[in-house]
Amino acid sequence: MTKSFQGIAASNGIAIAKAYLLVAPDLSFDVHSITDVEAEQARFDAALAASTTDLEHIKAKASKNLGESEAQVFEAHLMVVADPEMSAAVKKRIVDESVNAEQALTEVTDAYTSMFEAMAGTNDYMKERAADIRDVTQRILSHLLGVNIPNPALIDEDVVLVTQDLTPSDTAQLDRQFVKGILSDLGGRTAHASIMARTLEIPAVVGTDVATSQVKDGDLVVLDGFTGHVVVNPDEQTLATYKEKAEVFAAQKVEWAKLKTEHSVSADGKNFVVGANIGAPKDMEAVLDNGAEGVGLYRTEFLYMESDHMPTEDEQFEAYKAVLEKMVGKPVTVRTMDIGGDKHLSYWKLPEEENPFLGYRAIRISLDQDEIFRTQLRALIRASAFGNLWIMFPMVATLTEFQQAKAIYEEERAKLADQGVPMGDIKLGIMIEIPAAAVMADQFAKEVDFFSIGTNDLIGYTMAADRGNDRVSYLYQPYNPAILRLINTVIQAAHVEGKFVAMCGEMAGDSIAIPLLVGMGLDEFSMSAPSILQTRSLIKKLETESLKHLVQKALALQTNDQVKELVEAELGDKINM
Amino acid sequence: MTKSFQGIAASNGIAIAKAYLLVAPDLSFDVHSITDVEAEQARFDAALAASTTDLEHIKAKASKNLGESEAQVFEAHLMVVADPEMSAAVKKRIVDESVNAEQALTEVTDAYTSMFEAMAGTNDYMKERAADIRDVTQRILSHLLGVNIPNPALIDEDVVLVTQDLTPSDTAQLDRQFVKGILSDLGGRTAHASIMARTLEIPAVVGTDVATSQVKDGDLVVLDGFTGHVVVNPDEQTLATYKEKAEVFAAQKVEWAKLKTEHSVSADGKNFVVGANIGAPKDMEAVLDNGAEGVGLYRTEFLYMESDHMPTEDEQFEAYKAVLEKMVGKPVTVRTMDIGGDKHLSYWKLPEEENPFLGYRAIRISLDQDEIFRTQLRALIRASAFGNLWIMFPMVATLTEFQQAKAIYEEERAKLADQGVPMGDIKLGIMIEIPAAAVMADQFAKEVDFFSIGTNDLIGYTMAADRGNDRVSYLYQPYNPAILRLINTVIQAAHVEGKFVAMCGEMAGDSIAIPLLVGMGLDEFSMSAPSILQTRSLIKKLETESLKHLVQKALALQTNDQVKELVEAELGDKINM
Repeated sequence: MTKSFQGIAASNGIAIAKAYLLVAPDLSFDVHSITDVEAEQARFDAALAASTTDLEHIKAKASKNLGESEAQVFEAHLMVVADPEMSAAVKKRIVDESVNAEQALTEVTDAYTSMFEAMAGTNDYMKERAADIRDVTQRILSHLLGVNIPNPALIDEDVVLVTQDLTPSDTAQLDRQFVKGILSDLGGRTAHASIMARTLEIPAVVGTDVATSQVKDGDLVVLDGFTGHVVVNPDEQTLATYKEKAEVFAAQKVEWAKLKTEHSVSADGKNFVVGANIGAPKDMEAVLDNGAEGVGLYRTEFLYMESDHMPTEDEQFEAYKAVLEKMVGKPVTVRTMDIGGDKHLSYWKLPEEENPFLGYRAIRISLDQDEIFRTQLRALIRASAFGNLWIMFPMVATLTEFQQAKAIYEEERAKLADQGVPMGDIKLGIMIEIPAAAVMADQFAKEVDFFSIGTNDLIGYTMAADRGNDRVSYLYQPYNPAILRLINTVIQAAHVEGKFVAMCGEMAGDSIAIPLLVGMGLDEFSMSAPSILQTRSLIKKLETESLKHLVQKALALQTNDQVKELVEAELGDKINM
Repeated sequence: MTKSFQGIAASNGIAIAKAYLLVAPDLSFDVHSITDVEAEQARFDAALAASTTDLEHIKAKASKNLGESEAQVFEAHLMVVADPEMSAAVKKRIVDESVNAEQALTEVTDAYTSMFEAMAGTNDYMKERAADIRDVTQRILSHLLGVNIPNPALIDEDVVLVTQDLTPSDTAQLDRQFVKGILSDLGGRTAHASIMARTLEIPAVVGTDVATSQVKDGDLVVLDGFTGHVVVNPDEQTLATYKEKAEVFAAQKVEWAKLKTEHSVSADGKNFVVGANIGAPKDMEAVLDNGAEGVGLYRTEFLYMESDHMPTEDEQFEAYKAVLEKMVGKPVTVRTMDIGGDKHLSYWKLPEEENPFLGYRAIRISLDQDEIFRTQLRALIRASAFGNLWIMFPMVATLTEFQQAKAIYEEERAKLADQGVPMGDIKLGIMIEIPAAAVMADQFAKEVDFFSIGTNDLIGYTMAADRGNDRVSYLYQPYNPAILRLINTVIQAAHVEGKFVAMCGEMAGDSIAIPLLVGMGLDEFSMSAPSILQTRSLIKKLETESLKHLVQKALALQTNDQVKELVEAELGDKINM
């Protein structure tokens, strides 16, 4: 039966493939007395054996698709399955209590996990062992109950993944070769999973509410990542229409690809920079493939988060140098450590906070724990000899913070200079992501070399809404005139002092926002690499002068929706790809 | 020995009294084998008897000082002490395991509390019972160990309370008759306990770091709530100096009291309104005693928080009517329900959120759960017949939210009018406490009757800092030019449209801020009642015209400290009381 429903368009493109449901299976069971103890024990042994086969298969796939370290977790699971104490305890309980294997297994593994958790305290290792036991229990139970546990690592044909909510770790395990689309019940356009889908260029529709209840395993799914429309088991004509749309988009991508070596110049000849946001040197391949004119945001926190220790000065130096060298003279803007909020380190516990987004994070930590900050600055200053380095500080709220951070930077620079360490010219700037900094942009502009507007947090604080919170995510309104006014204030204040303004939030790659930002005179647009060529293509169609009037009209409106309608009405043909 | 140290001045006044240490006692003990089982059981019985005596005494005091409902908790404690099952279990364990009474007691009550907590789930009743058992265990332990447990309800002579951090519930139990001052290790000027101290007019110094380690029970403490200075066991001359300062302040208060029936008019004849912030009709006595010209903020969430059910329309009507009648025609600004964030209801669970301050709260809940909102609006519209009612919506971020709230209000008003219910003129406004609303004040000013600037949250969101979080509370900067610019924008935007602007945050009663706000043209200053006369006294000394220049200078500065220094340099004599 053909069905269709609507969700939120989260990543461009058309996907047409069979549905693969990634939902938690029903593992509930009845407790009952058994009489044939040996048959029950044999049933348990069979479930253990099937689980072992499963896990070996998954482990082999994971190690091939995701690498050895990702596969380690399945090795740990195999050890749990093979544990002779566990299986002996389950079998003894089947005998002693005459209960079915499901119940015996659950009692035994519950006791184990409670013990591990009680002992764990703040010890992550013990918590992970408890999680391993729970995962393995589920797998053995699934075989006892004859229920299938989905596992994305096992996918080996083209699918549209259908799920309630895609966790970042699910997304990390996706095999791009086979996952052609993502469809979910929950989530919004700016959720981490949506951002990841755009980075991986996998079409996605999220927030449908009904995907997992309306779609069955194996249904043919058509997913339109431009409009958020979803059709299940389409008729011939619908299928043909979407196949054509997919071809048009493929052709469009071929056109965009031709812009790879071009500059981002507007129709009336004004130059812009379209750059890339990266998290690690490994992202540079996509940056170069998409013809980025710079790296507008290098998020160094991943260096800290993906390590099991505080990264050393040399480790950091190598990472920064690698990126600078690959950009051969094009600007690379490195943001100093932005941990705290929702970003944690396994080896360095931050305090629990009631409102971590309004708490101890980013530059606040760097100024408080300045040895960590100095190490990073030294690594950066040393790396500056290998390219065109810009350093920016995140979460600056006051002039004092910037002045303190700059003073520490100057101290480290002077020490390295005394030692004769080679170094290049470095520009020093701040992220504008706290409303206070936007309001004080005229004062900051006198002191910094550049700004980079971080719209994700700026919108969150300005609207007092956490975009990760589904109940208030409707307040994440990038086109709200309050946001546009603050951004415009920042750009004009910077230009009064002759300073450069970039934007590195999601908004920089948004086709409604781009014409407004061009009209305001934003200098650099930095985004995930796959959006670069499309943005360049749009900029090449725009006339900056006429957009100045559009900006004035937008700033005088009342709501987000009014601005969106205005831009669509005036530029509809250009902003639709 | 005389000692002195410095803290943060949190509530004006001089306190000179004996120290009463309110710190958690050391109840650690060794586990050891006992041989004389009967003696150990007798020791336990004696501790039970002493605990009963304690609790009866505390209960009688609490019922006299705080009322019957506050005394109920001690009745529950008495029931735990008298529980025959508990004492039998402890005695059995002393016999069975030959352990000392401390260990036997702890084992038994730990088992009880674990059981209660495991069963509790989201049930507050069970959690409270577990807490009762823990409290009683501590009390019995204290008698077994011969250690004193401090209890503020038992204070019956003048004291300065010395504590690590005063919780809101500690503060609620304070007996103003005896507690002459509050001295703490932790906390800041804007912590809830500090606000409560100002409301109760108890001098307070907080954030000393060292109070509980440097002061002993019975030490004579001199505490200067103006400067934050603390002297322990002062010499004769120091004591005399502070006694004189206390007399000067008492005389000053007498002078201020004369202003009770005067208007708040500046030296050059401009009229201002100085109003009061209240939480319940019972606060009206202090409002009238201090000559408030209006109620600038009636926080209705206390109606919801102090009830065990969602307050009915009639219950709310009575509360609003009582306040309106007492103000006999003076304006009463009622804020609709502002729950969420850190304000919870026992009978209606809100979702757990990562960042509740950026979450589901205030008008966001009212628009989502509009039956609750409609009940409140009907109660308000009915009460409007009895006075001069202004209604304002909290946490408004977008024009759409105000328009939706107003539409609901109009619907309820029309329904009541159809029924012939009497009602008065009502003004409709919004709190300005989200940066987006401040930035869009010109648009809001076209739609509302008035603004009230809520500086506590406005500062928090604008600086992206939770003032309750000690690690970032230094960013709670009311004089930061970013804050002053937003406030000035709001005031000027309102006046362009001929609309009234009040302020109801802490800042409205701050002697550095008041001259700047007068210079900007703020219409109403609303604050805790004890600050009203002092503020009126200050306003009467100020020249509005010259302050306009001061405002321009302040808005062009870079930091909070620079603004403070500027105001002190230009107005030092007037702003020091």
